[in-house]
Amino acid sequence: MEVLVPFSTDRPKSRLSAVLDAEERDRFARAMLRDVLDAVDAAGGDPRVLATGPLDEDVRCRVTVDDRPLTEAVNAALDARLGGGDRGGDAERVAVVMADLALATPERLRDLFDAGREADLALAPGRGGGTNAFVAGDPRFSVDYHGASYLDHREIAASAGLSVAVVDSYRLATDVDEPGDLAEVLIHAAADADAGRAAAWLADAGFALDTADGRVGVRRE
Amino acid sequence: MEVLVPFSTDRPKSRLSAVLDAEERDRFARAMLRDVLDAVDAAGGDPRVLATGPLDEDVRCRVTVDDRPLTEAVNAALDARLGGGDRGGDAERVAVVMADLALATPERLRDLFDAGREADLALAPGRGGGTNAFVAGDPRFSVDYHGASYLDHREIAASAGLSVAVVDSYRLATDVDEPGDLAEVLIHAAADADAGRAAAWLADAGFALDTADGRVGVRRE
Repeated sequence: MEVLVPFSTDRPKSRLSAVLDAEERDRFARAMLRDVLDAVDAAGGDPRVLATGPLDEDVRCRVTVDDRPLTEAVNAALDARLGGGDRGGDAERVAVVMADLALATPERLRDLFDAGREADLALAPGRGGGTNAFVAGDPRFSVDYHGASYLDHREIAASAGLSVAVVDSYRLATDVDEPGDLAEVLIHAAADADAGRAAAWLADAGFALDTADGRVGVRRE
Repeated sequence: MEVLVPFSTDRPKSRLSAVLDAEERDRFARAMLRDVLDAVDAAGGDPRVLATGPLDEDVRCRVTVDDRPLTEAVNAALDARLGGGDRGGDAERVAVVMADLALATPERLRDLFDAGREADLALAPGRGGGTNAFVAGDPRFSVDYHGASYLDHREIAASAGLSVAVVDSYRLATDVDEPGDLAEVLIHAAADADAGRAAAWLADAGFALDTADGRVGVRRE
């Protein structure tokens, strides 16, 4: 299954600017991207980066450049792959997995891909009602990433009479956007035998878990 | 399987004080508790509330009152049930499920209970490294809810040579503590055919999803 991984090469992860400077955000975003690509590959998916601009490093997979906003770029990619209505139910399935799912594992992506082979649409909701990953197999589905896209995507599917499967996974629900999310990367890296590049990058940059005030956050040494 | 549901009758959900007054927080906390008890029951568990004080309403299950802090009360309950070392591996399993898991479903609790029958310890981590639910079957396990308890609990289990299973579920990872968490209740209630009392209570109290500023939050009418 082809798995598109959208990636912004232009000022990625701006909501981390309180704790990382622009170059650090860029490096951390690329570490997460490579972790996601590895997990997709290990899950049996065929990853392709859908980037807003050229990637200046070797990610060992194909890269498509489309500088349009996320929703437009993903819809164009879905349209190109699912046939825009003229191939119907036999069209191949395509997945879209966000590049900042630093906790994604091959096992849970495999669950998503499996769910997407059974249903017309398989969704992995994110915190705050986002759509962190999905598999679509019907040209009548399109994305709209603004607002609570998980609910909008369910509604788009329902309007088209499509069956929907939901993958309930904390790992897939956790997109790393804000400083508090860095703690999630470190927590689950500490529990994983095989943590990825993003966690290693954070540790190298001096980040550690901080439970001093009773809640779990990060501090930088 | 006996399933303990700890509940604080004394000023529950204080971190919601920016959006709910004390009486509202109490009513909302009880709505979540009853949703959790229903889900435990539907999952085949035998729920028992472990309350810090008498519950002045009928929750249709047994209630044990223990006014000690959470960690001490849960350890005393584990000790009483798992035999404090003198029954060993044949001791029955006991689960502990937090009362504020408003998104918990019978299906995912059943997954947890199943995992807890296979491993010595099954953990459902929460956001921020908490332990939102677990099943323990060995008297060498004890809890420590301070800090990143998910990591501490893994370490306690590892030190005792216990096998650990992790249940990766967004629904079980979502404890409702802060104003932002209310959006999760409304989002998933909107997607569920059979949403619970907590979501209904929020809707009755005038809460609705708000996507005005681009992110998904709640507003109150």
